[in-house]
Amino acid sequence: MKREWNVWVAGGDLRQVKLAELLADDGHTVHTYGLEQMDGIGGESSLKRIGQADCVVLPLPVTGEDGMLNAPLSERKTPLTAVLDELNPEQVICAGRVTPEAAAEANARGLILRDYFAREELAIANAVPTAEGAVQIAMEELPITLYDARVLVIGFGRVGKLLAHRLAGLGARVTVSARTYRDLAWIEAYGYGAEQTEELEGWLCGYDLIINTVPAQVLNSTRLADLSPGCLVIDLASKPGGVDFEAAARLGVKAIWALSLPGKVAPVTSGKIIRDTIYHILQELGG
Amino acid sequence: MKREWNVWVAGGDLRQVKLAELLADDGHTVHTYGLEQMDGIGGESSLKRIGQADCVVLPLPVTGEDGMLNAPLSERKTPLTAVLDELNPEQVICAGRVTPEAAAEANARGLILRDYFAREELAIANAVPTAEGAVQIAMEELPITLYDARVLVIGFGRVGKLLAHRLAGLGARVTVSARTYRDLAWIEAYGYGAEQTEELEGWLCGYDLIINTVPAQVLNSTRLADLSPGCLVIDLASKPGGVDFEAAARLGVKAIWALSLPGKVAPVTSGKIIRDTIYHILQELGG
Amino acid sequence: MKREWNVWVAGGDLRQVKLAELLADDGHTVHTYGLEQMDGIGGESSLKRIGQADCVVLPLPVTGEDGMLNAPLSERKTPLTAVLDELNPEQVICAGRVTPEAAAEANARGLILRDYFAREELAIANAVPTAEGAVQIAMEELPITLYDARVLVIGFGRVGKLLAHRLAGLGARVTVSARTYRDLAWIEAYGYGAEQTEELEGWLCGYDLIINTVPAQVLNSTRLADLSPGCLVIDLASKPGGVDFEAAARLGVKAIWALSLPGKVAPVTSGKIIRDTIYHILQELGG
Amino acid sequence: MKREWNVWVAGGDLRQVKLAELLADDGHTVHTYGLEQMDGIGGESSLKRIGQADCVVLPLPVTGEDGMLNAPLSERKTPLTAVLDELNPEQVICAGRVTPEAAAEANARGLILRDYFAREELAIANAVPTAEGAVQIAMEELPITLYDARVLVIGFGRVGKLLAHRLAGLGARVTVSARTYRDLAWIEAYGYGAEQTEELEGWLCGYDLIINTVPAQVLNSTRLADLSPGCLVIDLASKPGGVDFEAAARLGVKAIWALSLPGKVAPVTSGKIIRDTIYHILQELGG
Repeated sequence: MKREWNVWVAGGDLRQVKLAELLADDGHTVHTYGLEQMDGIGGESSLKRIGQADCVVLPLPVTGEDGMLNAPLSERKTPLTAVLDELNPEQVICAGRVTPEAAAEANARGLILRDYFAREELAIANAVPTAEGAVQIAMEELPITLYDARVLVIGFGRVGKLLAHRLAGLGARVTVSARTYRDLAWIEAYGYGAEQTEELEGWLCGYDLIINTVPAQVLNSTRLADLSPGCLVIDLASKPGGVDFEAAARLGVKAIWALSLPGKVAPVTSGKIIRDTIYHILQELGG
Repeated sequence: MKREWNVWVAGGDLRQVKLAELLADDGHTVHTYGLEQMDGIGGESSLKRIGQADCVVLPLPVTGEDGMLNAPLSERKTPLTAVLDELNPEQVICAGRVTPEAAAEANARGLILRDYFAREELAIANAVPTAEGAVQIAMEELPITLYDARVLVIGFGRVGKLLAHRLAGLGARVTVSARTYRDLAWIEAYGYGAEQTEELEGWLCGYDLIINTVPAQVLNSTRLADLSPGCLVIDLASKPGGVDFEAAARLGVKAIWALSLPGKVAPVTSGKIIRDTIYHILQELGG
Repeated sequence: MKREWNVWVAGGDLRQVKLAELLADDGHTVHTYGLEQMDGIGGESSLKRIGQADCVVLPLPVTGEDGMLNAPLSERKTPLTAVLDELNPEQVICAGRVTPEAAAEANARGLILRDYFAREELAIANAVPTAEGAVQIAMEELPITLYDARVLVIGFGRVGKLLAHRLAGLGARVTVSARTYRDLAWIEAYGYGAEQTEELEGWLCGYDLIINTVPAQVLNSTRLADLSPGCLVIDLASKPGGVDFEAAARLGVKAIWALSLPGKVAPVTSGKIIRDTIYHILQELGG
Repeated sequence: MKREWNVWVAGGDLRQVKLAELLADDGHTVHTYGLEQMDGIGGESSLKRIGQADCVVLPLPVTGEDGMLNAPLSERKTPLTAVLDELNPEQVICAGRVTPEAAAEANARGLILRDYFAREELAIANAVPTAEGAVQIAMEELPITLYDARVLVIGFGRVGKLLAHRLAGLGARVTVSARTYRDLAWIEAYGYGAEQTEELEGWLCGYDLIINTVPAQVLNSTRLADLSPGCLVIDLASKPGGVDFEAAARLGVKAIWALSLPGKVAPVTSGKIIRDTIYHILQELGG
């Protein structure tokens, strides 16, 4: 990899701030834009010289709902298109959670937005702060210790695996449910209790904490009605989520929908994860 | 152990409420006093019949600073002596963190206050919620994950042991410091990094989190000045604590003094621990 | 699943003996053939009534090199074709590691050999005894404890994952190498040291134990020459293996090629794993 | 500590050989005596110059049954008194498992034998290879995996603690028995099943493996008769041991008495442990 890059970090939250710092620590020349509420490194007030960057890192998500560059730490409103207008195809342009609209705007200018959020190694690395964030919420909300608590994790994907590992490390009695024989075999090999997700009916009353990681409504009103009083539900599934929250409210079940945990509970770690992924992208491009 | 006891649970916080529930669940006849803000089990408005109890459980701590029964969930102010006046030597009277004054008052009436807080098995069991509470605080305060964080635990007593175990289970890089060859051998046998507490100078800059469990001022101003920016300090040592908090404030070190965590982070678990200890006391008395 | 099956267990080693016992424990009617050196359950001396079975379980591997039914616990030599001649298409016929020749012979008779060894849940479950067997060999061969030993696991597939987990549980300092960013991200998320398999040159001298799980010659003579004296190499990769054993012998490197560990180190557990897999096959067939 | 010592390592097994190598690696001048079957470092054929040593390390145990220096790697028979005759009170003389006779002989010459085997940090460090050795034996003897095996560890002292930790790390279902509320509280805090050693009757049939660490006959014939067929018993207790081995033989229970494991399963690690302890002794003497 080239020793020193000229990198622009534009928009975003604390993760982008940390990313900028880390890139500077590694010896790169870093310019920031749209991060002016934080102590900046080379904070720029215009996009004039962004076209000189070797690499531009746009935030996660890249845009707000209004097509503006997502820049919560800035007073400035900058349309994403205004950023794209200044860029050129020789630059490596990275962005997080690229919408079809953003991709199309880039494409129209001959640009490629390389979506670091779509890369599997970032998804795996992000599963760590997600799992830790879920543990933190459980600790905050439950009047019992996770030690000796009876916990059900629904789903044994990235987050399910790392979450079960942490809960076991804290002394919880961990059961994981999944649908395939393959996943059930993994769950058993790691020493957790194994249940079939389709066959949870009638067994849910045995848990103090249920954490869902599956993006399908596995906790419908019938199942929620099974829970013991005081059982906490944490839903980590992205929209539309895995819990019938209306039913939960009606039944008096405390259910928390916890999304985008990495940026919230560990912005500095998240910045590092993005940096590593940016480096992978550059390496693959022969940078 | 006798099958069914008549137990009075007087004063205290959520832990006593839970204790009362658990005793009732086990089939005992339970009366509460001074817990009226919670849904009570047999809530009593006077102490008239407390003399009929087989066992009386007073709170932790047993008195506030004013000699009153410690009863934060009650409007009533009841002097401890008023409670003691109603009791008799045939009863088993348990209380938490008994002061010399309280013991003397009991003694003058021919009573023994059996201090469940002084029992080692309770101290061990309480180390679990203390360790979990410290983990929770660290997760809340740090912008990084505990996973891969460089953590120093000072002291390898009850809390140090269980805390190191949990931190390792969460993927932190754990170092523990102690003073004796014995403790250092244990630290190594469990696979943590081992440092001598006397020789921490010059090495403290390498940590993201330092948790003290030793009741002596190990983190004085010189040592605090060594810390890297952003390093969090959590002090779990009882008064006078192990951190020079004034120096910390002056140096801009974030230092949190976290006391009495079990009752705060896991009152229900704490109630269970007290119940188990009460049972041990009764068993030893041939109850 | 049907309550009671008529099952024939034919040929095989201790795993088949245990399988027969377990099936009988579950209430099935079990006949064995070719297991006569062990205390049999309904040991049969001919295949005459095997056509009446609901399910027939042939061994793992199904045949020896000579086309005979693999039956090391029997004096009898039975050609596989002689077994197949007695079977009919209504029966569920399970077999392990079915060769193309065996499949063709079955096919010619209108039979399907359902290969339990080819199922992923069996491969995952078998990775547990494989990993344990590797730990056992390492303990037997090394004059140091695995605790604090510097161990490299090459590959993070089924065996690599479960092996690293166990080694860490024993206090070893575990590094895992892999090739993809994806696997490296998993390795880091679980808290092991991560190395790229392509870039191990120059670093191999730092290990006390190297365990290969990758079926490609990753430990060639150049790399073997890097090892420190006393470093043990265990190769778990199936043929052609991952170690240049000739070079190892020449260089004085102790290298052990450990194949088929589940049946060797834990035949009873292996029998259970096969039973579970047979049940899955039956369930999927609507049995 | 003084930079360079003149050290004599006399007698002993592989542990002393390794000790000599490690001391030499640390820059000390090392002479060996009575280790001539191994590649020696400065192997001496007489004791003539042993009086010039700063420190003399005698083996573990220091003598055989006949009063000779314990020297299994040597053809020579040297009475311990012959060694002591050459030593002087200015030297630091370390020895392992010093008998009253040996101590008296030393005393008569104005010498002190400092018993490294009596030091607690060595006992703790040695518990690691003892625990690993027990795991190795269990893996070798059992036809099932330790993963998912139901294991009872009797006693929660040094070996019990580290053994339970390792068994749990391997996925065993671990129960530990002890006698005091204190130890039971620790067992629970670490998340193992807890049983009272006095009340094991009637429950022993539920285990696949029982490992005793308590030096009292806890496994008498009544209790052994309770075991399930195939249950393995490993006794780690020093003489007189904790198992009625005659009853075990009569009942067909496989029981293994495994003593002195560190020197057997991990002589190199044991040598390191002795070195560390020698250094502690020297440091305490202001060396």
